Amino acid sequence: MVRKLQVAVSGLGRMGARHARHFLEKTPRAELVAVCDPDPNARAWAQANLAPYGTKIYEDFDEMLKHPGLEAVCVAGITTQHAPQTIRAIEADKHVLCEKPLSTDIATCEAVVEAANKKPHLKVLCGFSRRFDASYRAAFERSDNGGIGRPTILRSQTCDKFRDDDYFVHYAAHSGGVFVDATVHDIDLALWFFGADSIVKSISAVGVNARYPGLAQHQDVDNGVGVVEFWGGRVAYFFASRMMAAGQHDVTEIIGTHGKLTVNQNAANDLVEHHEPNGIRREIAQTYYDRFGPAFVTESNEFTECVLDDKKLPFKLSGAVSAVKIGAALQEALRTGTKIEFNEIGERINKAKL
Amino acid sequence: MVRKLQVAVSGLGRMGARHARHFLEKTPRAELVAVCDPDPNARAWAQANLAPYGTKIYEDFDEMLKHPGLEAVCVAGITTQHAPQTIRAIEADKHVLCEKPLSTDIATCEAVVEAANKKPHLKVLCGFSRRFDASYRAAFERSDNGGIGRPTILRSQTCDKFRDDDYFVHYAAHSGGVFVDATVHDIDLALWFFGADSIVKSISAVGVNARYPGLAQHQDVDNGVGVVEFWGGRVAYFFASRMMAAGQHDVTEIIGTHGKLTVNQNAANDLVEHHEPNGIRREIAQTYYDRFGPAFVTESNEFTECVLDDKKLPFKLSGAVSAVKIGAALQEALRTGTKIEFNEIGERINKAKL
Amino acid sequence: MVRKLQVAVSGLGRMGARHARHFLEKTPRAELVAVCDPDPNARAWAQANLAPYGTKIYEDFDEMLKHPGLEAVCVAGITTQHAPQTIRAIEADKHVLCEKPLSTDIATCEAVVEAANKKPHLKVLCGFSRRFDASYRAAFERSDNGGIGRPTILRSQTCDKFRDDDYFVHYAAHSGGVFVDATVHDIDLALWFFGADSIVKSISAVGVNARYPGLAQHQDVDNGVGVVEFWGGRVAYFFASRMMAAGQHDVTEIIGTHGKLTVNQNAANDLVEHHEPNGIRREIAQTYYDRFGPAFVTESNEFTECVLDDKKLPFKLSGAVSAVKIGAALQEALRTGTKIEFNEIGERINKAKL
Amino acid sequence: MVRKLQVAVSGLGRMGARHARHFLEKTPRAELVAVCDPDPNARAWAQANLAPYGTKIYEDFDEMLKHPGLEAVCVAGITTQHAPQTIRAIEADKHVLCEKPLSTDIATCEAVVEAANKKPHLKVLCGFSRRFDASYRAAFERSDNGGIGRPTILRSQTCDKFRDDDYFVHYAAHSGGVFVDATVHDIDLALWFFGADSIVKSISAVGVNARYPGLAQHQDVDNGVGVVEFWGGRVAYFFASRMMAAGQHDVTEIIGTHGKLTVNQNAANDLVEHHEPNGIRREIAQTYYDRFGPAFVTESNEFTECVLDDKKLPFKLSGAVSAVKIGAALQEALRTGTKIEFNEIGERINKAKL
Repeated sequence: MVRKLQVAVSGLGRMGARHARHFLEKTPRAELVAVCDPDPNARAWAQANLAPYGTKIYEDFDEMLKHPGLEAVCVAGITTQHAPQTIRAIEADKHVLCEKPLSTDIATCEAVVEAANKKPHLKVLCGFSRRFDASYRAAFERSDNGGIGRPTILRSQTCDKFRDDDYFVHYAAHSGGVFVDATVHDIDLALWFFGADSIVKSISAVGVNARYPGLAQHQDVDNGVGVVEFWGGRVAYFFASRMMAAGQHDVTEIIGTHGKLTVNQNAANDLVEHHEPNGIRREIAQTYYDRFGPAFVTESNEFTECVLDDKKLPFKLSGAVSAVKIGAALQEALRTGTKIEFNEIGERINKAKL
Repeated sequence: MVRKLQVAVSGLGRMGARHARHFLEKTPRAELVAVCDPDPNARAWAQANLAPYGTKIYEDFDEMLKHPGLEAVCVAGITTQHAPQTIRAIEADKHVLCEKPLSTDIATCEAVVEAANKKPHLKVLCGFSRRFDASYRAAFERSDNGGIGRPTILRSQTCDKFRDDDYFVHYAAHSGGVFVDATVHDIDLALWFFGADSIVKSISAVGVNARYPGLAQHQDVDNGVGVVEFWGGRVAYFFASRMMAAGQHDVTEIIGTHGKLTVNQNAANDLVEHHEPNGIRREIAQTYYDRFGPAFVTESNEFTECVLDDKKLPFKLSGAVSAVKIGAALQEALRTGTKIEFNEIGERINKAKL
Repeated sequence: MVRKLQVAVSGLGRMGARHARHFLEKTPRAELVAVCDPDPNARAWAQANLAPYGTKIYEDFDEMLKHPGLEAVCVAGITTQHAPQTIRAIEADKHVLCEKPLSTDIATCEAVVEAANKKPHLKVLCGFSRRFDASYRAAFERSDNGGIGRPTILRSQTCDKFRDDDYFVHYAAHSGGVFVDATVHDIDLALWFFGADSIVKSISAVGVNARYPGLAQHQDVDNGVGVVEFWGGRVAYFFASRMMAAGQHDVTEIIGTHGKLTVNQNAANDLVEHHEPNGIRREIAQTYYDRFGPAFVTESNEFTECVLDDKKLPFKLSGAVSAVKIGAALQEALRTGTKIEFNEIGERINKAKL
Repeated sequence: MVRKLQVAVSGLGRMGARHARHFLEKTPRAELVAVCDPDPNARAWAQANLAPYGTKIYEDFDEMLKHPGLEAVCVAGITTQHAPQTIRAIEADKHVLCEKPLSTDIATCEAVVEAANKKPHLKVLCGFSRRFDASYRAAFERSDNGGIGRPTILRSQTCDKFRDDDYFVHYAAHSGGVFVDATVHDIDLALWFFGADSIVKSISAVGVNARYPGLAQHQDVDNGVGVVEFWGGRVAYFFASRMMAAGQHDVTEIIGTHGKLTVNQNAANDLVEHHEPNGIRREIAQTYYDRFGPAFVTESNEFTECVLDDKKLPFKLSGAVSAVKIGAALQEALRTGTKIEFNEIGERINKAKL
């Protein structure tokens, strides 16, 4: 019989429950042997939906780590637990798939990388879902094959549909800000298409609060524009918004010296068009999961494959730290109004304003 | 000084008034010297809008024909006058641009061609606006250069926006039916892309009345599908409708052995897209003039050029008759439920049912 | 522990192997317990890819039917075995998911329906993949909710990418012809959107051989246009082609009295656009599996759910027969050049020409 | 007889010759009475193409100003002559339509405005072609009617097709830089959609030379990203490029609190789509005149109408200066790497770095 990866999921909130389902139902080479969540409601959901398939339910993360035969953990609970749980899992000699971000704090991120580096036989992945998306991969392959010449300018936006509630304001208390929370995906794309070794030359950002004035208390904005200049003649510029009317609209353009690629410029949730008295209409994804759901499934499958077959992960853990660093600097530039500059070896030139 | 074509327009209804404006304002090498219309309201409009530029206004067509120096006439009044006025203009030795159709009666069409053939020095053009449309021309050029191999299948539709009134029903009394009135444009495209010498093998048609039951009294339909098979391995199939929600939606596909061209598949009235809570929306042309206005201007300019420079017209008058013949046969096939067949030299095999 | 459907797949050709994988990897509530194929190469593939997961491999279909605990069979081998195997599986009291078509012979199709009717406790499904496609379902829901008024005209095409080999010619020997093989999907859409009880009024078809002259020996064509008129004022018209340049291009328009829906009018294989010196380019699906792969997975999941939870199947087995009947009549109309007519209770008026 | 505006065109280079044709052929209420150009070749062209219609040809601008009955002048020669000729025309009591920019030097721009202010009875227009474009107007009308809530973020790009020659490098010697030459159109859009009285808060810019290293000698770039923050919670961000593969690609997004409008996101030169072995392709405009040709014709007609009917011009001359000021500041920010800041009454806070 085939060997299946013995995997557990920590945290059964919205995204954790999805990860649990992906490992249970859509990852043929994995077996979801355990889950944990301190919340009794979450455990009741697991009892109804996962236990019948043989998944063991724990209240405590550390107890779960001791589950017999456990090989890998998907860390998907609250953000503040991402780093500590990942580190404890590594120490317990488990492979880890950690939801992004490792942390909104850079030192904490680096501690995770350090822990992982001590156990090079473990696969530790912190996920940027777009790296697993078929369209981004097709674009990258084309770019990597020289199809657009040298990638020079990258424009990317992560834009959420407006919500008529306080969600974004509450969320901003712990998210690290819109550039750390949302734009981090676009930054990761820049590091992917421009190369992981790209060195930042300058960072600047502006933003406004147009629909969520409450964000100001967290020094955050609902619309932000950030520009990152890299040494070697490359620029990435970003837009993040919390007030799109039509839906989640994440778009990327990669402009090379000899051509351009766009991803999701013509967003569409399906292949239907509505011809109506006021025109022709297409619907678009409403949430990031509408858009990137299949990418998360690819992620759980590839993580599983990398562990079982001892393959190289598709990207390094340290990239997740680089992206958060740039996101945090954009957030600082936004907050202080300063353009932050770096020398050719990436050392900051001007001091942080507080 | 440059010589300008001395041109007159007969009929100042909706389309005639447009032709008058095109010759007055948008045809630099022509001079609109005269117009005529039996309707005093139309003449009042001309008095206000055309007379200040020096255009002479007539009540009577034959009087207008005697206008000193007149070289060419644009016949644009009611359909039943198209053929008689064209013939009289030819007899008076004037070049003629006649609005389509020459007539809904084939014998009458042929009489016009015969009159024109007697005066080969005159330019007599019966207009299919799509022949002057930039997109159709680009498609034809590509096809003519072999860009899609041998054109084999042509799908084309002429579809009007629904009107919440009796217009289409009243109109059907004299239009010759939807295949003669609307589809005739699509038929002409088939004769253009497949070649003017294409010989029909069979004709069949079906249709329904979904929104205008009153059309039944004129043996007409508000939605019709027609199929024309040509000898030599080609097929054209057509759809005509009077009930589009979004607007005038005329689409053509030319399918060759090695590629395909579409025209107006992605209709759009302008370059604006509206991102709204229920999706992304584009508006489309509401009327055929919204869609083909510039083609009419090209038509008046090219007609003028052909006359002044004694150039060959872009297509033959006889083509207008061929298209009407096929349209009338489609209408007969619709009415009788019969498939009409022709031999390889184009002679009808089965007799007409009445 | 949860109960999983014990399912077997018969036939491990291209489509059968996919069904096997779908049940093995992408149908959480099913367990692929057995497969069979008379071809030793197919069994070797199964040995390498399925056996490690515990799937038993048989050479003989009837032996496989005796597999202990087997509840359901997916019949996916060669077309001529679809009906006999389905009937034997039914007789062995197994639920059946049968690949389309049941048969290209109508009497044989009807025999299967009869066999199924004798065992109403069994779920017997013959699949039209588009019924499980998310976009078609969204369109149907919109139509069914009255979003476009009364569906009146349906245009639908099933068009394959050109293949530079003899595949289509060889295939035509047993496919029943392009209208039975390909257009049958479009016919099924007409029966879905117009209602399963729609009664045909007339059927006509024309076609040409533009790239595969060898099809003529099977009285088949590589480009066909068919028109089906229904009693009650509805028309469906179809196009099938084997010579598309860009890829598999299956498009449907549903035109209602108050609006229109299109499915896949703007085909796209992913969300990438290529900006190149000669314009902006999108790639489209190359095969029907590129386009409808996820629909097949939905199918295996819903079939499983219907069996396990004793739910009603999403559509009746008899619909598969109706679609084949219309397809066969289109093929006859093509072959004979005759328009075939039916009275208001669906009885044929004119006799078949041979 | 109707009165026609007696207009002259100064400069018959590429754009001047077009203006001459527009007034001659496409502006029914104007009469092109004179042109001037110091270049004998340009005059020879005019002799062949304009003189036959009665246009008088001058070598000297000031001589032309004395043309009997001359009412208005279109200043369209080399950029360095825009301001001086405009001022002399104003002093000679002529209405003026001046090609953009008035000047790349702000003091010179202001001198023109001052000259115009002294003669309030004259119409003096400095053209931003997009203000006359049908799609931008439709978008503005929608925005102005509150269709997207409060316009908050504007993204706009002016991107030229790559040219395999030295044109852009030579041009940069006098263009004022890419933000003054190209982005100035996007800046003008920001001032249009956000309001002419919008006050800049900060300006920053970065750029690279990816294909035209020679631009460095003029302290210019072939790809630039600029961000302009306005007081009152609005941001405009811009991209300019000289290396697009597919063509001239000018795109604008206006993001309001309740919706978004895009202009030319789906660029297309016509309504044709090409289905080819590698996908579906659309061609786009190759030059700004391909894209904005009709807007220039609208401009000449509306300028004529404003003069003849003493109507208010569609926008103020001073707007042209505001846009150039912002463009020049973006260029300075690019050159110096500094973020330039302004207080709430628009006074610059930090000193210019040189």
